[in-house]
Parts: sequence; C-alpha cells; structure tokens
Amino acid sequence: MELKVYCDRLSQPSRAILIFCKANGIEFEEVKIDLGKGQHLSAEYEAVNPIKLVPAIVHGDFKLFESHAILIYLASAFPGVAHHWYPADIRERAKVHAVLDWHHSNLRRVGFIFNNTICLAFGIPANPEAAAKGEKLLSASLARIETFWLQEDGPFLLGNAKPTIADLALVCEIMQLEAGDKNDRDRILSPHKRVVKWMEDVKSASAPHFQEVHAIMGPVREKLEQLKIQAIENPE
Amino acid sequence: MELKVYCDRLSQPSRAILIFCKANGIEFEEVKIDLGKGQHLSAEYEAVNPIKLVPAIVHGDFKLFESHAILIYLASAFPGVAHHWYPADIRERAKVHAVLDWHHSNLRRVGFIFNNTICLAFGIPANPEAAAKGEKLLSASLARIETFWLQEDGPFLLGNAKPTIADLALVCEIMQLEAGDKNDRDRILSPHKRVVKWMEDVKSASAPHFQEVHAIMGPVREKLEQLKIQAIENPE
Repeated sequence: MELKVYCDRLSQPSRAILIFCKANGIEFEEVKIDLGKGQHLSAEYEAVNPIKLVPAIVHGDFKLFESHAILIYLASAFPGVAHHWYPADIRERAKVHAVLDWHHSNLRRVGFIFNNTICLAFGIPANPEAAAKGEKLLSASLARIETFWLQEDGPFLLGNAKPTIADLALVCEIMQLEAGDKNDRDRILSPHKRVVKWMEDVKSASAPHFQEVHAIMGPVREKLEQLKIQAIENPE
Repeated sequence: MELKVYCDRLSQPSRAILIFCKANGIEFEEVKIDLGKGQHLSAEYEAVNPIKLVPAIVHGDFKLFESHAILIYLASAFPGVAHHWYPADIRERAKVHAVLDWHHSNLRRVGFIFNNTICLAFGIPANPEAAAKGEKLLSASLARIETFWLQEDGPFLLGNAKPTIADLALVCEIMQLEAGDKNDRDRILSPHKRVVKWMEDVKSASAPHFQEVHAIMGPVREKLEQLKIQAIENPE
C-alpha cells in the first residue's frame, strides 16, 4: 500500500514528516505542493486536503492531515518504527501528547520569520510589529523548553534518552529561523544553550535525513535576503 | 489511586474533562482553581502545573496538563470508558487526533467572548477589534465543522454514530458563547443549523452531566452583563 506525502520543504511540519519517514525506513512518495506557486489552493489538492494546508498524507484509501496526527499515525501504522518515537506506555505517551498540544499554542503561533522575511517572497510587506510579537513568544517558548520540557535525566524532551515525535516537531519548527537573518537567529537562540545542544542532539539522532531535508534552508535564506534588500531599496 | 482534576468551570477545556469523567463513571475529586481570584498563578498550583493554566490532573504520582492529552489519557487509563470516546482503530483514532489538532488552530484561538465580555470581569477593557477578529474566526470554524467535520453518515463528528473526545472538546468550546450576549450567540450560531443540531446531540449523549457542569453559564452571563452595563455607564 503506497504512502504519499504531500508537502513543501519550506513548511516546518512537512519537514518533520519527511525526516520521520526517512529515519524510520518508511517507503513513500514525496509529492511537492509548491506553496510559493499557490498549489495548495488548487482544486486537485483540495481533493487531498480540503483545509488546503501542507502536509497531508494519502495511505492507500486513507487521507489524513494535521502533522501531529500524521506523525502519530505513521508511528502506529508502520511496525518498523522504533518504539522511542511514540512510546506505548500510556503515561509516557500522554506526556508526548502534552508537549505536542503545548506546541500548538506556543512555537506554532510564532510567525516571526514569516512576518520578518518570508512574507516578502509572497509580495506581502514585512510586519515589524507582528514580527516583534512573534519574537517575544518565540523567546518565551524557548525559555520554557529550556527550563521545563528539557529535564536533567536525558538529552531529549521529557528527560528521554531518545527522541520522540515531539522532539522532531519542535526542532523542525525552530529550524525555521534558518530561513531568516543569521543575526536574528543568533540573537534569539544563543541565550538558550540547552535548546541549542538539544537541537544538535535531534539532528544527530536523525542524521543524515535531518540535514538532507533542511538543505533547502540555505538557498531560501539567500533568496529572502535578496528580496529584503530589494524591498528596502525600492519601497512601494 | 485517586484522581484529582484541577479546574475552573469557566474554562471550556475544564468543563470537557469534568463531563468526560462524570459521563464515564470515573471517580475523581474536583479541585477548583478560581481563575477570577488568580489561584492559577499561586506557587501551590505551580507545583501541579508549571504552565499555570487549567485544567490539569494528578493521578497518583502522575501529573498532566493540556486538556486533549488529559482526555486521551483518561480514555486510555480507565478501563470503564466506552470505546467510542477514543477508538482503538489507528485510522479512526488518527481522525480524532486531526480534529483535536485542527481545534487548536481554529476554535481555541477565537477569544470572541473573552474580548467582548469576560475581560470586563478581570478589569480589562473590552477590545472590539479583537472581538470582531475572533467572531470572524469563530464563524469560519463553525462553517468548517458544518461542511467538513460533520458528515452525512452519523450525527457526530467524522460521521460517527457516537461522540468522541473531539465532539466533547469542541462543543464545550462553542458553549463559551453562553457566557456572552444572547443576541451575539444567536447571530453567530443560527446560520449553522447542523452545528446547532450536533451540539444538542452531544448534550443528550452526555446528559445530565453536560447540563450540570454548564449550569454555571447562566449566572456568569448575568454577572458579565451587569459588568458590561457598568463599564458603558462609567467609562474610565
């Protein structure tokens, strides 16, 4: 039964799903839905995901969207997935759900890079006020990860010795900073040493797939920097 | 092993958990954390939930917050819970997760009633701009429930014959309208006939607990109406 992953590597949750599949040897076809070209708004894609967002999957006759639900489904439907990604113990599992739910109301709402740079690629003016608000939420979320979700017992979230789907989802989100200005990234990340270390641990645990799926970020940053310079030089 | 539910019935997800426990015969102690008195900010409650939000549970030596994670945990940890609330089939379960994830980015973000009336109880001025934005998102979310999440096959979300935890979470959220102006509620809800019918079905399926837990809403609305009249008569 074929698995299709509809995604754009510019999207944080799309990257999490691609890395998860690759790191677990899940065979799939990557179907690019180019957000920049508005392919997610097409009637063809609406038949896959009526909410018109990426990522989505089709597995045989089963369609699913919402990245956390997809990660849980893949971890449950493919027997080759290592246990640590989505533990069977109901208490350990509950903690993973709690991190993912918390993520929705925190990191996922940030929009810092979008309002600062990515918007320019869509012809939308930068929104410094929204970007500042986003940076504040981002920094508060990183502090919360550092002081609460990362614990003494182990290198991963919840003090685990190995990553769960929550580690992957959150780190892919934070990696969106790679699409923005390097000074911004350093200013925001550098106060959170444990977060930086944890991100490196998640990358190592899912190497080389993490790096391969994120290879797009360097060129994207360069393109966005050019667009930003153009926007500053030729304000409308 | 004792279960404690830390909650305030003014909070939508608190109500969902209380109804879930009562409807499934789960024994628990309800510990009121009075949001109006700021009890969620106390050091005592921080030991229960460092994020300082309600609801949270303590089950023996296990602590958990985030309402969706709690509902899943309760459905998994208490063998008396009827199967339909959180189906075991991984595809049916995945769809429940998808609804709950969607909920985070839609209904949960609305804040219409908060910005229109509840804020007054906390001495915060009403924010008509935020309320208008909230109403727009609320109406769009209700339309999405009506045209997508409710399906022809059955009365509940995803076309189910019986409710899941997602039905309960979403209906409790929409019930927040009961704390606001009745004209607002009618204006917002009345275009969505299937949503109104579905809400009644969820109430019936969890009677009399749904009604008992929501009994607080009438007095709250009256109190908030008084505060609103005072705020209009004595603007600062």
